[in-house]
Amino acid sequence: MARFRVTLAYDGTDFLGWQIQAGGRTVQGVLEEALARLAGGTRVIVAGAGRTDSGVHALGQVAGFDLPREMTPAELQRALNGMLDDDVRVLDVRSAPPGFHARKSAVSKLYRYELDCSGLPLPQRRRHAGWHPGSLDEGAVAEVAALYLGTHDFTSLASAGSSVTTFVRTVTRSEARLDERGLVYEVEATGFLRKMVRSMVGGLVAAGSGATTPARLETALRARDREAWPAPAAARGLTLVRVDYAGDGPVLP
Amino acid sequence: MARFRVTLAYDGTDFLGWQIQAGGRTVQGVLEEALARLAGGTRVIVAGAGRTDSGVHALGQVAGFDLPREMTPAELQRALNGMLDDDVRVLDVRSAPPGFHARKSAVSKLYRYELDCSGLPLPQRRRHAGWHPGSLDEGAVAEVAALYLGTHDFTSLASAGSSVTTFVRTVTRSEARLDERGLVYEVEATGFLRKMVRSMVGGLVAAGSGATTPARLETALRARDREAWPAPAAARGLTLVRVDYAGDGPVLP
Repeated sequence: MARFRVTLAYDGTDFLGWQIQAGGRTVQGVLEEALARLAGGTRVIVAGAGRTDSGVHALGQVAGFDLPREMTPAELQRALNGMLDDDVRVLDVRSAPPGFHARKSAVSKLYRYELDCSGLPLPQRRRHAGWHPGSLDEGAVAEVAALYLGTHDFTSLASAGSSVTTFVRTVTRSEARLDERGLVYEVEATGFLRKMVRSMVGGLVAAGSGATTPARLETALRARDREAWPAPAAARGLTLVRVDYAGDGPVLP
Repeated sequence: MARFRVTLAYDGTDFLGWQIQAGGRTVQGVLEEALARLAGGTRVIVAGAGRTDSGVHALGQVAGFDLPREMTPAELQRALNGMLDDDVRVLDVRSAPPGFHARKSAVSKLYRYELDCSGLPLPQRRRHAGWHPGSLDEGAVAEVAALYLGTHDFTSLASAGSSVTTFVRTVTRSEARLDERGLVYEVEATGFLRKMVRSMVGGLVAAGSGATTPARLETALRARDREAWPAPAAARGLTLVRVDYAGDGPVLP
């Protein structure tokens, strides 16, 4: 029995998200299916660093599991990529210490959101970008991005029915870039609540388009009330870019 | 009866190319189907500027047709986008003079090719980039890109069975950029032969990876012999970016 840590990229369009569920194709599901084949039919339970929602993508999702079989990381990577469809690739495999847990051991995560602001949604970007026609006010967008920085109770930005013990998270990076193609937003934090990044983008768009103001969003954040916050942006624009762990260098890519 | 000129973007992945054919979904086909509905069942023949192959994309394909019905450009654009699937969008509609023909009136076209040079093909790029793992030699790539500039007989780079009167074309721009993601190649010419851009990229990759040299490719170009040229790059990396016409400004996007 050996513990492994794998880094995955996937196009989330044709997955019902990360987490296994009855009757739907999920990333955890196809990965566990492939691992069960390598393990002679035994279920190998995979823990992912982030439970990406349906339609959300990853460039550097991390997962950990114990394989009841001897294989080198290179053999395992080749075997998995040979079994998986081309919308998911195993970019890296390494041995992990027995205490390693992809989610619990993570110290920070980086997400990126792309928003297409063209007058018509470009076919080329429809799988990987949300869409909001019309230009956004750069000053308002920057002000809201700065509002997210630091340690806050993010109850207002969490999905209904979240069963976490605390809604407090620390955002260490929050950067919005606007160009002629639209908006790219990158946010790094010690952890994220469900739908938190998409709600953050909902806030950027609402203030950037003049539907609300940064000051009103600040009040809404302090209110710890989901009803006070603008609607979350579409899942398809969101990508889990990277997960970092203590005591190791940057994880691929 | 009024002549129109439309500018289209499409994701070519789920099309068997531009040109109508029996039993396959094509861009010309879905466009003519939508126009026939607007024309009360009459076939409206659409001429495209470039007959993109199966899997090839467009950001600025141009098409022209005569509509046997009164509509403003804005009404026509809205009606077409309402009927077409989201992998094709009509970005611009304008009235055209009776002599306008999307292909014959074009004075130049710009194509872009994207090549993913990652060790594993990234799922996010698999619909819009070819794949060639490993880095390419920047000097060799630049030398081959420069070789294409100017007026040449491009027989060696044309598809078999091309039925054109001349294989001579004039390339006015040929620029290759390499970065950590791979290669982006942009080429502009007065016209292109079938598979010509993909063959150009095949040449860039063959020289860049050391499979051949720029000098041998120069000899192969002069030989006017298809057998002497490296294989064309995959269709999915290719995009028709823009078509230009005399006497008008840049066409969207």
